[in-house]
Amino acid sequence: MRALLAFRPEIAPALGAFTDELMHAANSLTQAERELIAARVSHLNDCTFCRESHAAIAVCHLGGCEELVASTVADPEQAPISEKLRALLALAGRVQQGGGAVGDGDVARARSEGATDREIHDTVLIAAAFCMFNRYVDGLAAWTPTDPEVYRQRARLTAEHGYAAGPLR
Amino acid sequence: MRALLAFRPEIAPALGAFTDELMHAANSLTQAERELIAARVSHLNDCTFCRESHAAIAVCHLGGCEELVASTVADPEQAPISEKLRALLALAGRVQQGGGAVGDGDVARARSEGATDREIHDTVLIAAAFCMFNRYVDGLAAWTPTDPEVYRQRARLTAEHGYAAGPLR
Repeated sequence: MRALLAFRPEIAPALGAFTDELMHAANSLTQAERELIAARVSHLNDCTFCRESHAAIAVCHLGGCEELVASTVADPEQAPISEKLRALLALAGRVQQGGGAVGDGDVARARSEGATDREIHDTVLIAAAFCMFNRYVDGLAAWTPTDPEVYRQRARLTAEHGYAAGPLR
Repeated sequence: MRALLAFRPEIAPALGAFTDELMHAANSLTQAERELIAARVSHLNDCTFCRESHAAIAVCHLGGCEELVASTVADPEQAPISEKLRALLALAGRVQQGGGAVGDGDVARARSEGATDREIHDTVLIAAAFCMFNRYVDGLAAWTPTDPEVYRQRARLTAEHGYAAGPLR
């Protein structure tokens, strides 16, 4: 992402601030929950770079539980997560298909599991934002590392410091 | 958009600054070209609100040529536009399908019609950004005006003042 944004240094600060506020700033959705939504949408969009990056950040926020993150990203309906997060991940999956794919039932399910209007808003915006980031990365054919350790190292920095210095380190 | 962002006043300024830099700030792509890319992607995503909003802004930048804008948004391959813009609109259409749908041939076509690397970068990012905005608007079922005059009035403000006060007035 940094290499891509080097083309447009005028744009990078605003995009970094937007991402940091959405993904890292204080929120009733935990950082792990937000990263799992990002990783799940990236998985649905077949964006390996973003899926691996945000799964690795979720692992950092969850004390190293790689299996929990992998199972949630691959199949949230079967993963050992809260019913609220399961409903938000289903909503995010609808957004990935398209704005018109979101039905009243998807929002009602999230609400019935305890999600607030702001949490529903943020889930839709995170899912929509990764439909942007995934296309930006793959549309410009960014270099995608294959060594998991590359993702782990960057994830630790982002998990601690956030996104304001750039959407991804 | 403003009504949606009222949920998250912390996020609105960064999103407005990002949109303004991408769509309104000085660029070798004209404002009309950028608005046509936004309207075309919104059309492909079936987002009536964004299509009508950005088509109306393009009309402002093109001195009122509603027919030219409508034909470009509906079918850029047949519209009376430059070959460079035609190639960039085709590239944007690929991005709308997904980052992986963009092929070397799409970029090569744009380059052969005179597009610079930065113009190709910005086209991909605009197309990706509207894959976000379209999902945000429709995923949260924003109110979509049906009176064309509503879009014309807002478009004049945005065409003149840009997006920094909010992604759409």
